[in-house]
Amino acid sequence: MKIGILTSGGDCPGLNAVIRGAVLKGVRVHDAEFVGIRNGWRGLVEGEYVKLDRHSVRGLSRQGGTILGSSRTNPFEGEHGGPENIQKHLDEQGIDAVIAIGGEGTLTAARRLTDAGLHIIGVPKTIDNDLAATDYSFGFDTAVEIATEAIDRLRTTADSHGRCMVVEVMGRHVGWIALHSGMAGGAHAILIPEQPESIEQICEWVESVRDRGRAPVIVVSEGFLLSGMEEAHSHKGLDAFNRPRLGGISELIAPEIEARTGIESRATVLGHTQRGGAPSAYDRVLATRFGMAAIDAIYAKEWGSMVALNGTDLEIVSIEEATGGLKTVPRERYEEAAVLFG
Amino acid sequence: MKIGILTSGGDCPGLNAVIRGAVLKGVRVHDAEFVGIRNGWRGLVEGEYVKLDRHSVRGLSRQGGTILGSSRTNPFEGEHGGPENIQKHLDEQGIDAVIAIGGEGTLTAARRLTDAGLHIIGVPKTIDNDLAATDYSFGFDTAVEIATEAIDRLRTTADSHGRCMVVEVMGRHVGWIALHSGMAGGAHAILIPEQPESIEQICEWVESVRDRGRAPVIVVSEGFLLSGMEEAHSHKGLDAFNRPRLGGISELIAPEIEARTGIESRATVLGHTQRGGAPSAYDRVLATRFGMAAIDAIYAKEWGSMVALNGTDLEIVSIEEATGGLKTVPRERYEEAAVLFG
Amino acid sequence: MKIGILTSGGDCPGLNAVIRGAVLKGVRVHDAEFVGIRNGWRGLVEGEYVKLDRHSVRGLSRQGGTILGSSRTNPFEGEHGGPENIQKHLDEQGIDAVIAIGGEGTLTAARRLTDAGLHIIGVPKTIDNDLAATDYSFGFDTAVEIATEAIDRLRTTADSHGRCMVVEVMGRHVGWIALHSGMAGGAHAILIPEQPESIEQICEWVESVRDRGRAPVIVVSEGFLLSGMEEAHSHKGLDAFNRPRLGGISELIAPEIEARTGIESRATVLGHTQRGGAPSAYDRVLATRFGMAAIDAIYAKEWGSMVALNGTDLEIVSIEEATGGLKTVPRERYEEAAVLFG
Amino acid sequence: MKIGILTSGGDCPGLNAVIRGAVLKGVRVHDAEFVGIRNGWRGLVEGEYVKLDRHSVRGLSRQGGTILGSSRTNPFEGEHGGPENIQKHLDEQGIDAVIAIGGEGTLTAARRLTDAGLHIIGVPKTIDNDLAATDYSFGFDTAVEIATEAIDRLRTTADSHGRCMVVEVMGRHVGWIALHSGMAGGAHAILIPEQPESIEQICEWVESVRDRGRAPVIVVSEGFLLSGMEEAHSHKGLDAFNRPRLGGISELIAPEIEARTGIESRATVLGHTQRGGAPSAYDRVLATRFGMAAIDAIYAKEWGSMVALNGTDLEIVSIEEATGGLKTVPRERYEEAAVLFG
Repeated sequence: MKIGILTSGGDCPGLNAVIRGAVLKGVRVHDAEFVGIRNGWRGLVEGEYVKLDRHSVRGLSRQGGTILGSSRTNPFEGEHGGPENIQKHLDEQGIDAVIAIGGEGTLTAARRLTDAGLHIIGVPKTIDNDLAATDYSFGFDTAVEIATEAIDRLRTTADSHGRCMVVEVMGRHVGWIALHSGMAGGAHAILIPEQPESIEQICEWVESVRDRGRAPVIVVSEGFLLSGMEEAHSHKGLDAFNRPRLGGISELIAPEIEARTGIESRATVLGHTQRGGAPSAYDRVLATRFGMAAIDAIYAKEWGSMVALNGTDLEIVSIEEATGGLKTVPRERYEEAAVLFG
Repeated sequence: MKIGILTSGGDCPGLNAVIRGAVLKGVRVHDAEFVGIRNGWRGLVEGEYVKLDRHSVRGLSRQGGTILGSSRTNPFEGEHGGPENIQKHLDEQGIDAVIAIGGEGTLTAARRLTDAGLHIIGVPKTIDNDLAATDYSFGFDTAVEIATEAIDRLRTTADSHGRCMVVEVMGRHVGWIALHSGMAGGAHAILIPEQPESIEQICEWVESVRDRGRAPVIVVSEGFLLSGMEEAHSHKGLDAFNRPRLGGISELIAPEIEARTGIESRATVLGHTQRGGAPSAYDRVLATRFGMAAIDAIYAKEWGSMVALNGTDLEIVSIEEATGGLKTVPRERYEEAAVLFG
Repeated sequence: MKIGILTSGGDCPGLNAVIRGAVLKGVRVHDAEFVGIRNGWRGLVEGEYVKLDRHSVRGLSRQGGTILGSSRTNPFEGEHGGPENIQKHLDEQGIDAVIAIGGEGTLTAARRLTDAGLHIIGVPKTIDNDLAATDYSFGFDTAVEIATEAIDRLRTTADSHGRCMVVEVMGRHVGWIALHSGMAGGAHAILIPEQPESIEQICEWVESVRDRGRAPVIVVSEGFLLSGMEEAHSHKGLDAFNRPRLGGISELIAPEIEARTGIESRATVLGHTQRGGAPSAYDRVLATRFGMAAIDAIYAKEWGSMVALNGTDLEIVSIEEATGGLKTVPRERYEEAAVLFG
Repeated sequence: MKIGILTSGGDCPGLNAVIRGAVLKGVRVHDAEFVGIRNGWRGLVEGEYVKLDRHSVRGLSRQGGTILGSSRTNPFEGEHGGPENIQKHLDEQGIDAVIAIGGEGTLTAARRLTDAGLHIIGVPKTIDNDLAATDYSFGFDTAVEIATEAIDRLRTTADSHGRCMVVEVMGRHVGWIALHSGMAGGAHAILIPEQPESIEQICEWVESVRDRGRAPVIVVSEGFLLSGMEEAHSHKGLDAFNRPRLGGISELIAPEIEARTGIESRATVLGHTQRGGAPSAYDRVLATRFGMAAIDAIYAKEWGSMVALNGTDLEIVSIEEATGGLKTVPRERYEEAAVLFG
């Protein structure tokens, strides 16, 4: 059996550990051959391959990024895309099955290709933790750890100067990274896309913290919306307060807090540092197990399925089910955290 | 309602986060009062208390150890022990319910006191991850992270000198820390109490690694037993090879590997560094949620129960069930990891 | 002897370690008394004090920020400022001497107060490493370590996506943090205030890296100026390329690199995370020694002097000399690093 | 010019950064060729070489260990050793000059080979910081950082249980790592080879800490000697208290403290974790600069010299001077730290 592996979409700590887990299990248990497909689906379409053997995955469990490169190419687009073209490329390389590591778009494309008869197994990659079919995926724990460390650092500055710090973390559609890092870092408010809050409520929390003699720390997902101002958010160029739009949501909120409460406020956008670098031990274990389980799914010929974490167990689930809807932060988890606000 | 909190048994990252979570939820949601009981059950017996309020738990989510102190005192032992004495002390302090944070011994004692009518809720503390009723408890993730970082460091020394490194991690009865840190660190063998292996098998793995031009890294639980040598292990003073017993199991294995394979071998016992210091973000979140859930259990008057993690949900389970047996590493998890050995 | 301590200016890892070193040495060797002055010079003017004894400095060597708070108040300004007022406040509290921990402004003010007869010893605080009279000060090493870790993380994202990452670090007037973190992180270009470079030169480096098949990483001080565009920089609202000014210099450079080279480019502003949190071991040792040496200077009545590091030795130097000019990155250090560019 | 590079002696963070700095500067500035000599002097004697070019040093600044391997082979020993044989091997490979990275033994051998006409430049490697001619060398800062982090972790366990923790760090002949990590970690006593102390004095410090309600933390160099017991130390098999010798000095002291003071005491030997893994930013910068300066020394034909750090400047010094004597902790640095004991 000759197995192709590709990584697609944004960087995520643990991608290399998945590759290593798959290759080692495939080589040792099934004597499989492996070929790396460069830069996601683009490599398939454009015929960019790299050899993958036991030696080439050495030391990868702790290495961030992906040795295969990544892109956001959609395999159904372009004149060289589509199931027939892709099958033709696979046949040319003698590739019997493909492990596609990626987020919802990648998995959906994988399912559609499977419908057309291709042999594909998915491995879910979601640093934001927004895929419904798996309790967690690799990368999320590392991102939360990095964000928490940054919050710890920003807190001492807040305390030394009596300032309000607004820390912006990843999460365009869901607030999991904000929820976990905010709880771990002891934030005084956590603002997530699932739960719009008004600037008045935010300032109330900030003032309550200040009145207890402390320096407020607020964690906000990049996708958070101020309630009652959804329209303003969509107005390109101007922000919710009719000022020129500067950058992230934190850069909108911080000056508004300062203007309304008189408390000196600063925004920090953590940005790409959250998705690079060595994975946490948790993510290395999960990613390695995902890679090995993908091999099991291949030898079980479960085309169109993906690996998933359920409690402490790995499972093989249908991609169709898995990509049915965004896994948002449920109301009770937000309320659990909100007890600690203010 | 006046609630007492105590921490019992060995140090564990996240104890302070549990205390903080419980106090903040109790004060804010139920207007409860709190009192800290010093040094585990001993403080109850000897009447050592400390005030616990919102101010005294400030910043605790990231602080290692326990601000309450700990001891291994059994509440049923000594002339001042036993349910009547303890109830008397609680009455004197006006304490209505107690949150007991501890391992199997503590939880079992809590259940027996509950049988005698006391109002106690347990919070499981098991850095080794050996309690059956919860997927994980706080402290385990931190310990795995610390052990993994040490393995990463030792690997470069192994590689530079062509040496075999034997790294001894915590785990007297179960091998979870070794399993996870060994997998995360890319170990060439993981030796756990659940799975005795012969020195011959270990040396085979070591030689196979050396023959591929690499430096072997072995992770071993402190409670691992060499197969066929159980008797020798119990002989005080002499080790399995009839040499004076030196220290941990790694210090027994490393010289034997060197003697049999000719590969220079070194033992490192990670020891107490695995259980101290700031908790990982994962453990802070879990511990904070445990503390808050313990308050829910108190107001639901679920005496004799404890909080537990099931997937991503918190549950209240009966302590009796929870302490029914050690949660060992199942055979399939060991075999999953063993694919990567040698 | 009763000694006052104050911290002034921006947050800096190690401030608390200075306070602890001074208090412990003063109490143990000289049986001195201590009083903390809150929020820099403002606390003196407004009479905000806090008791400082052996107990209150416990554990401070590893704690970020300053337990005394800080402000940017100038002791010569305001109706309550000026030497007479300050001396009056000191007399009211029975304070015989003051240790002022701060940057150039603080030290200059300290010297002027000394000229007026006040008993003040300075401790240099310069996270940017821009004070001439000391080889290093505390905080710099920690900032470089944090920036380097961020660069390490951003590099894996750069490599995975074939992107150019532009990392903006602290350094308004001098490029030491960029120089050290860029060298440690293996940056392909380091842009510092002392050495303007043209956008053409920067793009040449970027393309040379891309042509070798690698992803360019550029480290830039916040105070860097593009050569030939000094005028544009000073034009509020518009940047050097006549676009609305967005944020830091990295947010000006990254899109321009992308526009000129076609290489996808991203800016990351590290911001306040560089100045908060626990100090590195290096900074803890240096800060502790500075605090202890300040006590020596007080008992030697070296008013108007400050402590400084010379090689591995601590010295007492005149503040006047120390604040004579900015310590910029010398040309040979830049050229040494530039060998590694491109 | 063709330049050989070798690394000799124990693992040390920064070795790879030296190699990278030398190769990049040599290739870019002088168009030099490089060859790596495997496993220290042994590789020269046995003819084990590896190609070194720009590509092979990619990413090395942050990688621990040495890609060249190391050994403790003395180039003057064995039938293939000695200046003539080594020169012959160099001639066969066309190697014009050698950069030898190692400790005192390596440097002394390098000087003797230089006396015999060979072209060798030394780079000092001393994780213990015991070489007189350089303020610091790479590896020391990383070791201190790792030891300090371990002390931070052990402290919370000490506090939680009211225990005395004895932490053993590297330093066979000098106490620099103990001095710096002990000061950074806030140790209550620092025991170094340069300053024998009696067990009575140590117990006095321990009891004084206990009497203030705190948990004592003691940092001890592996080479520390109890005063008045030098003879006992040298008696193989028995320790200073006539018990079978167990392991490190901490394992001798901890039980004795417990026996004499009644305070539960635990020893932790940090061991090899101190010398592996990624270097700190400080060490990466220093090692990179050392590597580049070695190239300068080669092109200046300063055979028999080595690079050294003096304040913030790099210098070229004679190896003869540099290896004249051990750089021990001076009495005033010990006394400076001792103010904080007890």
